[in-house]
Amino acid sequence: MIIVLKPDSTPAEIDHVIERIQDLGLKPHVSTGEHRTIIGVIGDESKMQAQPLQAIAGVEQVLPIMKPFKMASREFHKADTVVNVGKVKIGGGHLGMIAGPCAIESVWILDEIAGAVKKAGANILRGGAFKPRTSPYSFQGLGEDGLKFLQDVGQKHDMPTVTEVMDPRQIPLVEKYADMFQIGARNMQNFDLLKEIGQTKKPVLMKRGMSATVKDLLMSAEYVLSEGNPNVVLCERGVRSFEDSTRNMLDMSAVPNVQGQSHLPIIVDPSHATGRTDLIPPMALASIAAGADGVHIEVHSCPEKALSDGPQALLPPKYAEVMAQIRKLAEVLGKVF
Amino acid sequence: MIIVLKPDSTPAEIDHVIERIQDLGLKPHVSTGEHRTIIGVIGDESKMQAQPLQAIAGVEQVLPIMKPFKMASREFHKADTVVNVGKVKIGGGHLGMIAGPCAIESVWILDEIAGAVKKAGANILRGGAFKPRTSPYSFQGLGEDGLKFLQDVGQKHDMPTVTEVMDPRQIPLVEKYADMFQIGARNMQNFDLLKEIGQTKKPVLMKRGMSATVKDLLMSAEYVLSEGNPNVVLCERGVRSFEDSTRNMLDMSAVPNVQGQSHLPIIVDPSHATGRTDLIPPMALASIAAGADGVHIEVHSCPEKALSDGPQALLPPKYAEVMAQIRKLAEVLGKVF
Amino acid sequence: MIIVLKPDSTPAEIDHVIERIQDLGLKPHVSTGEHRTIIGVIGDESKMQAQPLQAIAGVEQVLPIMKPFKMASREFHKADTVVNVGKVKIGGGHLGMIAGPCAIESVWILDEIAGAVKKAGANILRGGAFKPRTSPYSFQGLGEDGLKFLQDVGQKHDMPTVTEVMDPRQIPLVEKYADMFQIGARNMQNFDLLKEIGQTKKPVLMKRGMSATVKDLLMSAEYVLSEGNPNVVLCERGVRSFEDSTRNMLDMSAVPNVQGQSHLPIIVDPSHATGRTDLIPPMALASIAAGADGVHIEVHSCPEKALSDGPQALLPPKYAEVMAQIRKLAEVLGKVF
Amino acid sequence: MIIVLKPDSTPAEIDHVIERIQDLGLKPHVSTGEHRTIIGVIGDESKMQAQPLQAIAGVEQVLPIMKPFKMASREFHKADTVVNVGKVKIGGGHLGMIAGPCAIESVWILDEIAGAVKKAGANILRGGAFKPRTSPYSFQGLGEDGLKFLQDVGQKHDMPTVTEVMDPRQIPLVEKYADMFQIGARNMQNFDLLKEIGQTKKPVLMKRGMSATVKDLLMSAEYVLSEGNPNVVLCERGVRSFEDSTRNMLDMSAVPNVQGQSHLPIIVDPSHATGRTDLIPPMALASIAAGADGVHIEVHSCPEKALSDGPQALLPPKYAEVMAQIRKLAEVLGKVF
Repeated sequence: MIIVLKPDSTPAEIDHVIERIQDLGLKPHVSTGEHRTIIGVIGDESKMQAQPLQAIAGVEQVLPIMKPFKMASREFHKADTVVNVGKVKIGGGHLGMIAGPCAIESVWILDEIAGAVKKAGANILRGGAFKPRTSPYSFQGLGEDGLKFLQDVGQKHDMPTVTEVMDPRQIPLVEKYADMFQIGARNMQNFDLLKEIGQTKKPVLMKRGMSATVKDLLMSAEYVLSEGNPNVVLCERGVRSFEDSTRNMLDMSAVPNVQGQSHLPIIVDPSHATGRTDLIPPMALASIAAGADGVHIEVHSCPEKALSDGPQALLPPKYAEVMAQIRKLAEVLGKVF
Repeated sequence: MIIVLKPDSTPAEIDHVIERIQDLGLKPHVSTGEHRTIIGVIGDESKMQAQPLQAIAGVEQVLPIMKPFKMASREFHKADTVVNVGKVKIGGGHLGMIAGPCAIESVWILDEIAGAVKKAGANILRGGAFKPRTSPYSFQGLGEDGLKFLQDVGQKHDMPTVTEVMDPRQIPLVEKYADMFQIGARNMQNFDLLKEIGQTKKPVLMKRGMSATVKDLLMSAEYVLSEGNPNVVLCERGVRSFEDSTRNMLDMSAVPNVQGQSHLPIIVDPSHATGRTDLIPPMALASIAAGADGVHIEVHSCPEKALSDGPQALLPPKYAEVMAQIRKLAEVLGKVF
Repeated sequence: MIIVLKPDSTPAEIDHVIERIQDLGLKPHVSTGEHRTIIGVIGDESKMQAQPLQAIAGVEQVLPIMKPFKMASREFHKADTVVNVGKVKIGGGHLGMIAGPCAIESVWILDEIAGAVKKAGANILRGGAFKPRTSPYSFQGLGEDGLKFLQDVGQKHDMPTVTEVMDPRQIPLVEKYADMFQIGARNMQNFDLLKEIGQTKKPVLMKRGMSATVKDLLMSAEYVLSEGNPNVVLCERGVRSFEDSTRNMLDMSAVPNVQGQSHLPIIVDPSHATGRTDLIPPMALASIAAGADGVHIEVHSCPEKALSDGPQALLPPKYAEVMAQIRKLAEVLGKVF
Repeated sequence: MIIVLKPDSTPAEIDHVIERIQDLGLKPHVSTGEHRTIIGVIGDESKMQAQPLQAIAGVEQVLPIMKPFKMASREFHKADTVVNVGKVKIGGGHLGMIAGPCAIESVWILDEIAGAVKKAGANILRGGAFKPRTSPYSFQGLGEDGLKFLQDVGQKHDMPTVTEVMDPRQIPLVEKYADMFQIGARNMQNFDLLKEIGQTKKPVLMKRGMSATVKDLLMSAEYVLSEGNPNVVLCERGVRSFEDSTRNMLDMSAVPNVQGQSHLPIIVDPSHATGRTDLIPPMALASIAAGADGVHIEVHSCPEKALSDGPQALLPPKYAEVMAQIRKLAEVLGKVF
């Protein structure tokens, strides 16, 4: 950590900063320049990061050098983490191809969609039973009934399942029926939820918040990892921006950006990122080319009657077409699914 | 609601859209132009808003005309809502002047700060017992002990209190000790939390999410209102932007923007919005001039030792100075506190 | 165009709107609903778009239906435009592989870089002679000398050249020496520049402004097209966002988004979009997979001594590696360069 | 400047960085920590800022300590700059109250508006003769005729005038007729324009670009100042954001943020920032309370027939009302106009 003093800081202020550093058992390293004094801190920076040093009189800037996350960092764990969801692997060259409807509506519709996506090559089935809806007047999900349908249909088609959990009290229920928890974008910083999911062993699909930086995303993963659950798969799903012709802005460079800093797998959700069926196929292909460890695509056999997010769901034949193209790319790139 | 068909839509597609509208008991109003057909829907638009009409073949755009929130809207309730927090009123010309430390650290520090802000004119005491921290390694709050300290200190200084609730399971505890719930920016779309707070009668301070539009904020208020709790005070606290010299970007125009569309009071939190002690005083004054129903300011007697957000806390004398200036402005503008 | 009246609009206000429409020789189509009146306008909407109808008393919203650009739109021109830069084609399955240093520094360095990128497969040479620098104290480019070096080196290596023009007065000079104009992100709405480049016949590489929407980009292309120059190649180069670990945020979905609305080719510049050498290769691959008509990459043989943007320049061997991977992808996708 | 080496940097890499620093005549100050080495640079940092040190192998981060602008900084010039526009002062307690139509349409309309705003208290008349329009099909301004009208009407009402200049070739013309140049948001980084305006002595109203940070704005001011023209007034006019209910997002904290770092005056343009007549009055008041050195408001006597930006123009009586309120606030705050 580097502490930059103001040009007009007094010797007493500088001494005070030095004392604060020494009180923490760390060693200050003072450089006195023409215009201002700079203090480097040698030792365990993590002790310093919680300190409000910026609030000390005479301090102009506090510049952290170390990353604020540890267990999520590649420095801590060099090799790519491979997360197992049932028999499916995600990471280290294995692609997680997650597909299914936004919301679980009935066992029949889910079964129809699952059969189609499985045939096209999907290896994990998704479907929401608890739905975070912007409007209190929108469909809120089938709850436990939906979870049962998901389990049954997943077993029938031999696909592990992933579904969203919005509230820590839903964890036991979701844990019972599904193979992977999904933490939605709106809950990426619901820290109680993160901690309690961290106390389970189930894999977690953690979506990036709508205004979360890559660092924020990795800090949220750190919450889960630090509680003992190492099975975190990250998901880029677009962030808010001024561009008004797409639902969100897909930050494609987040894929290699995360992979450079962290050993955790990262997949892309082009459905929520773009909100447009014409843009999902090219963005799915681009994700694989960018090095993503999979894609998450919403598919519905009758989008115009879907109870949630119909306008961004692909029809099964369109999904099959995209998967065929992804397969070709994956071969060139040496990835398997 | 207006449905715009694509230039190349077929008569069968147009008929299909018309049928869907009629199935909902609504009346379509078809205009056939040179280039394309447009269908207006007459009747209760809310029935249509949940329908994924955009997903129907031949549909180019769906343009809602009515606002998606009702109980929060000024059309529903013309007069300004005045929310009572203990004996303090917020809205309709009454300013809520909320102040206190970011986190409750001890009864002594809280008492010292409360005495100072009360003397300066604050009428509601804030302090966090449950803290949403980006890092799992940061101070997470004192929990129930903190709530007790807040209650005791509030009573001693005759100030109602507000504190954050992050998890629905904390509601009974917070309800017992505090006078107002705070929903933090990260939980503005934690819908289970919103619904359960909606089932209490305690007033709620709802902070705008970091990437929430004004409409999103009002939709979240609608969740609370629709469950039966009418006592919602909104809070602008800055949104994420590309400007990197402030913590967030204070969207000052959200104040009159909300007031035009909604009867609910709205206050401003310049502490979180700017994250800089030099910018808090001018932004507090500007908020009052913009018509805000109060300001929320973090104050700490020793910011450099604060366990959370020290760098953005005002010292008590600085807070007193700002309050003196606000008092002058309030007189000119006909507001009281 | 659809004009939505306020719920409390008066008959006189409605009549006034109708008259304004009729004055323009257009036909209003009035729908009177339960809550409000809506007026559709039949006829040439472009006449209406310039009218400040939103300012008329009683009007709540004005919703345009038609796109505000014409010559740039796919409705106007169905087939993909193929732009010829010297002997190189961009668009319609032909990839423009633009590479070179940020700034032209000397004939020797440029020659060294050109030789290397040509060998790796680049087909157009870039280099800046007029440099838009944030700081007045940074290197501002070699001007005409730089243009001569670019021409000589391009001819030696048999590569057409592209270089930025910042000021309309530089057009004749750049036209004389280079094969393609570049309009930089900061000048995407320098309308005088656009108009005068529109009066030449040289192809134009138009970079998206840092806060331009896809629609804004297409409107700027419309300026050039409407003056008579049809040879516009668009370039996504990242937009400003809150993410602070990359220079800009690459909006990858802009590629198919533009291609759906317009016949113009679009390439991607991952160098400026990310500003990080570790992210450029995966983003170049992703761009091609997304359907881009080429990529624009900055290459320098000694980035640490580059006079501009060294930190984002690839070394020639790294560039050759990326190009080898792009070649494999292009084969799978049926693209040539 | 501080250079942070990567954890795995080699001694040779570290030596290479040290040599580069010494080659520039500066003194490196090496701190070797447990995890990594940090090098502080003592001496004139400006020499380093142009160097692409980030591109050197082994370098992880380069952290500048000094601000990149000088003449615009408060360290360079402690006292508030007061800019004289004709007989009107802006800065140091003097408010510049700029008002007028977006575009100059005719001498009669301009005269009518000027008479009204002068009576309400405006002290500078604005009006555009060269208009930067997103669409090539929109009204582009009256050019020199418009400038003449502006001069005549300004003289008649004894008001100095300000008008936009978009192209360096327009400078002599605008210089002849107007009292202040306006650099529009789209041209804030049109560096040739900035340099040539810097070579005149006329005062300049420099609007913040739509995605410019406060630092970018001050760097653009530095371009003008470094060419010899010290008369720069900055203008906050909103930036692009995800909020879709306002035209831009007014970054109110930019006012004290600029004033802390720079001696230059800064005013606010709530017309462009919000694009909504209901939000302009409260934002004008808030600007003055935030400490702005004036406001810039578009006024039109018949907004629904305005040739540009009618929907955001205030009617003269509404403007008079706002000005009456501003006068009261200004008295309390000790400002004059």
